[in-house]
Amino acid sequence: MKYDLLHDDLINICKTASVSDLEDLCEQIRVFLVEKVSKTGGHLASNLGIVELSVALMRVFDSPRDRIIYDVGHQSYVHKILTGRAAGFDTLRQYGGMSGFPKSRESVHDAYDTGHSSTSVSAAYGMAVARDISGDDYNVIAVIGDGSITNGIVYEALNNIGSNQTRVMTILNDNGMSISHNVGALSKYLNKVRASRKYDQTKVSVKTALGTVPVIGNPLQRGIKKSKEKIKYSVIGEEGHLIEDLGIKYFGPVDGYDIKQMTEILKAASEYNGPTLIHVITKKGKGYEWSEKYPRKFHGIGPFDTQTGQTASGGAPSYSKVFGEKLTELANKDDKIIAIAAAMGTATGLLPFYDAHEDRYFDVGIAEEHAVVFAAGLAKSGYKPVVAIYSTFLQRSFDFLLEDIALQNLHVVFAVDRAGLVGADGETHHGIFDLSYLSMIPGMTVLAPADGYQLDEMLEFAVDMEGPVAIRYPRGSSECRHLRLRKFRGSNSVISEGKDVTIIAAGAMLDECIDAAEILRENGIDAGIINAAVIKPLDSTWADLKSRLVVTVEDNVQRGGFGEGFSNEFKDAPYDILTIAIPDTFVEHGDIPSLRKECGIDAESIAMRIQTQLGSSN
Amino acid sequence: MKYDLLHDDLINICKTASVSDLEDLCEQIRVFLVEKVSKTGGHLASNLGIVELSVALMRVFDSPRDRIIYDVGHQSYVHKILTGRAAGFDTLRQYGGMSGFPKSRESVHDAYDTGHSSTSVSAAYGMAVARDISGDDYNVIAVIGDGSITNGIVYEALNNIGSNQTRVMTILNDNGMSISHNVGALSKYLNKVRASRKYDQTKVSVKTALGTVPVIGNPLQRGIKKSKEKIKYSVIGEEGHLIEDLGIKYFGPVDGYDIKQMTEILKAASEYNGPTLIHVITKKGKGYEWSEKYPRKFHGIGPFDTQTGQTASGGAPSYSKVFGEKLTELANKDDKIIAIAAAMGTATGLLPFYDAHEDRYFDVGIAEEHAVVFAAGLAKSGYKPVVAIYSTFLQRSFDFLLEDIALQNLHVVFAVDRAGLVGADGETHHGIFDLSYLSMIPGMTVLAPADGYQLDEMLEFAVDMEGPVAIRYPRGSSECRHLRLRKFRGSNSVISEGKDVTIIAAGAMLDECIDAAEILRENGIDAGIINAAVIKPLDSTWADLKSRLVVTVEDNVQRGGFGEGFSNEFKDAPYDILTIAIPDTFVEHGDIPSLRKECGIDAESIAMRIQTQLGSSN
Repeated sequence: MKYDLLHDDLINICKTASVSDLEDLCEQIRVFLVEKVSKTGGHLASNLGIVELSVALMRVFDSPRDRIIYDVGHQSYVHKILTGRAAGFDTLRQYGGMSGFPKSRESVHDAYDTGHSSTSVSAAYGMAVARDISGDDYNVIAVIGDGSITNGIVYEALNNIGSNQTRVMTILNDNGMSISHNVGALSKYLNKVRASRKYDQTKVSVKTALGTVPVIGNPLQRGIKKSKEKIKYSVIGEEGHLIEDLGIKYFGPVDGYDIKQMTEILKAASEYNGPTLIHVITKKGKGYEWSEKYPRKFHGIGPFDTQTGQTASGGAPSYSKVFGEKLTELANKDDKIIAIAAAMGTATGLLPFYDAHEDRYFDVGIAEEHAVVFAAGLAKSGYKPVVAIYSTFLQRSFDFLLEDIALQNLHVVFAVDRAGLVGADGETHHGIFDLSYLSMIPGMTVLAPADGYQLDEMLEFAVDMEGPVAIRYPRGSSECRHLRLRKFRGSNSVISEGKDVTIIAAGAMLDECIDAAEILRENGIDAGIINAAVIKPLDSTWADLKSRLVVTVEDNVQRGGFGEGFSNEFKDAPYDILTIAIPDTFVEHGDIPSLRKECGIDAESIAMRIQTQLGSSN
Repeated sequence: MKYDLLHDDLINICKTASVSDLEDLCEQIRVFLVEKVSKTGGHLASNLGIVELSVALMRVFDSPRDRIIYDVGHQSYVHKILTGRAAGFDTLRQYGGMSGFPKSRESVHDAYDTGHSSTSVSAAYGMAVARDISGDDYNVIAVIGDGSITNGIVYEALNNIGSNQTRVMTILNDNGMSISHNVGALSKYLNKVRASRKYDQTKVSVKTALGTVPVIGNPLQRGIKKSKEKIKYSVIGEEGHLIEDLGIKYFGPVDGYDIKQMTEILKAASEYNGPTLIHVITKKGKGYEWSEKYPRKFHGIGPFDTQTGQTASGGAPSYSKVFGEKLTELANKDDKIIAIAAAMGTATGLLPFYDAHEDRYFDVGIAEEHAVVFAAGLAKSGYKPVVAIYSTFLQRSFDFLLEDIALQNLHVVFAVDRAGLVGADGETHHGIFDLSYLSMIPGMTVLAPADGYQLDEMLEFAVDMEGPVAIRYPRGSSECRHLRLRKFRGSNSVISEGKDVTIIAAGAMLDECIDAAEILRENGIDAGIINAAVIKPLDSTWADLKSRLVVTVEDNVQRGGFGEGFSNEFKDAPYDILTIAIPDTFVEHGDIPSLRKECGIDAESIAMRIQTQLGSSN
């Protein structure tokens, strides 16, 4: 059967078509996904992996009445296609276009907005409690990967759900990897469960279970344990007790490419009056040669050639690459350096470190909280941990940065990657809060390089410092278009002096600020530039700047950021102050130039605001 | 045997004395604790519960070479006595005196500073990894309660430890309650384990296990499962698999008042070459009539009468009490209101809510992360969740406040209790960061009452608002000494006008500011006062204030706080600005007046700084 993904009522087709027709649909969705994502870039491998699962969910459940929450959310593409948004893939993740994540504002079928990992089960619990209090009876389903399930909040949620016996369905989409391969005891445990049964055997035992499930409530309450044991073993062999000990009924493992089997087991689980976990086995990148072969590369990818799987390359090395190579080099000479990643070792550039110093490389999984306290324990024992986490994900560690690292004044280096606007991933992923949440931490040094050379020198400087220090740098190319910065020795550089205005550029905003100064000079305004590489502590020499106006520019929100701190610290200085930052709002997805323009932190906006300010203060 | 707790070498006594003599020691420690804490106040019940356990740890392990980490840390009093700090109990938790929490700066025997729950296992993992890399062989021991173990970070840590088979010993101090009674599936599971064996039976089976443990490594590696099963069952009956599935060897349950048995099992576990969990059963408040009877009251308590267990009472109701009663009253009329606590239901005043609306009351356990996302799920389903969490613990929820609540603009009310300086609990517990981390969240409304009447009206206002809103209020009495505030209708009040200076008092700093204005007036300075009840958004009418100087006063750190925001927003206003806040540092424990003085936010310091500023700007 041939479907028109843009115009057919795919929800209805999921519900009514034969399994064989649905297999055709899945095939066509895969072709569509590869073609579209090859043009826009996006998250491919995880979506290819759950085509059949998304279809099976639509077949069994009644969205939007039933709430389906995709954890993390970058694997919601198939769900978007099925719910009438195939046309949006032409503008996927582009400025003004369709988001790559679930958004309630896009569709009633997106029950909850996700972006950061592992929130789906807690949110589902909230919806299920609301349902029960209201006397309603819809289903609430959290679809979560085996990577995301390692974060502590999921355990907190399951602990509540199991205890209260709330009817929440957790679907464990188990592909054996999150972005990189999974770590941890749970992962080993899941492997054991996977290995414990062959799929064709499972099919039979699922049917056995189906007959027994509806009866389960009563015998259990009567304390007849044997019946429970019987079901448990018939469905999952003897290995399901980790989940069952938390009071959650386990179903699986189920083949994630067998729509018929998934349909049956989802129906059966939905009839169970209590919390369930359905263990679905999938394969990241399924059905496309290159993504099956390189699932990590195709997790989140730029535009690529569908025939060869090749992406465009070239340009300056990324900040992540500079960081990873430099840290490896430093660790060659200093055996106290330890690298810590949170499921993002490759993305943060730590592959060379892993290759050279495997014994000092620790990927703790999606566990940013633990990563920081683990580092505290290492630092307390005389080691120099370097923790590489994206700016937006380090938000999870805020309390531990304060209470474990800063309060004990421990020397831990935080490599805060993807700081500032990140582009296509959008509002859940911009690193636009770190200057605020890091600067408010007593004793924290906050550094921000303006190019890769500076990051290189800064990292060496930071490793040799004392106390906690964070280096925040953006996604992508580490090139400063205009100049190569002078040696970083823990201080800021005056790039040029200006009588009318001095622009202080926080970290990688330097490029835009140099452009802005150029525009100003063309308009007869004498503009100087300072490279603010040290964001905290504030540079006391700035009290003596000689311009009429001093302007701070940062790719961080205004509140609590670099400019606000500057403005208060130097409020009695003899110059006027203008702070240019991201307004007090969330920023959507899109290309960086468009987003900077929208936020008023591109060169033209900067120049214009300075001109206005100088005009008004005349 | 009679010991001199102040002068004897108690560590040595723990190692060499007979068990019977140690029982005498424990008895004397209990008497000492009750007497001392009755005078200073402090955490009593949890310390009485683990006297024998602390002694057994000293007997078996070699501190400070072996690292003993007390999770949360308020149960480290016995450890402090044993390690030469008994004399410090005369100044326990007082300004300049001994801390009520582990502090490395106090003693080499405090391996890691704790205060917030559930970090011990991650920190222990860090120390154990450091040990292994260094080729050292000391023990690392985390002592954690059954309440603390419900927080997700513990699961993240155990997941790493189990996977890497790192030799970390986790001691589960299981008294069946954290501050209130525990919630969650894990708690139910632990009850089952506890119930599965009687202690006298355990004693025998422990001995059986001891004979078998040293042999365990080999047979397991050879894959002989039966032997593993045998040990597991001999030690814990059939219920230990939840921990064992994570790859952690389980020992227990053990009677926490049997020093001999604990000594044996701790020794055996320390010889096991891999991660272990020892399940010790204790009783909160053990050995003192009143704390056994009212363990919750004696968790953290002020000075009390040792004979009657009575504390001094009277005075105005606390903010927590006002909050709890008002919310209950609102919920009587509005069936959409749901109360959420994180193991602090009683302390945050929610007992009356629980009594009146049990079906709409949810204590999620020590799981602040989950609490917030659970609330998001409820709000998304049309309910009005009110989340009551201490300011310092809400730091754990920072990422979820941003990504789940604010990004979806959900109407959730946060009752941020214990904001500002909290006094005796000290540096880990002051709520001095919330104005910063809340104000930087786009779309978040931040309110701060100056007395109980205002909190009452503010809560009603907040519940009827849209979007996310936080109300932050201090610990203790809700009385404003000087005046009763006018009706709160979402705006700020001018208390009095002043030509020379206007002092804007954030929330409950109003009292100090009124005193400061009085001092200024006595010195001929015309000082006005504004009650800033709305911290965010900033009040635009403040641009038009007529004084020469405007001063903000807050009990929050300077960076990112109320004053910094004010200073930047009104930098072009025609008055000078002075921001008075807590300096960029951590603040120790002590009484509030001393701490305010130290931080420069008491009336006299405020008045003096204003005089200086007015003098310098003349």
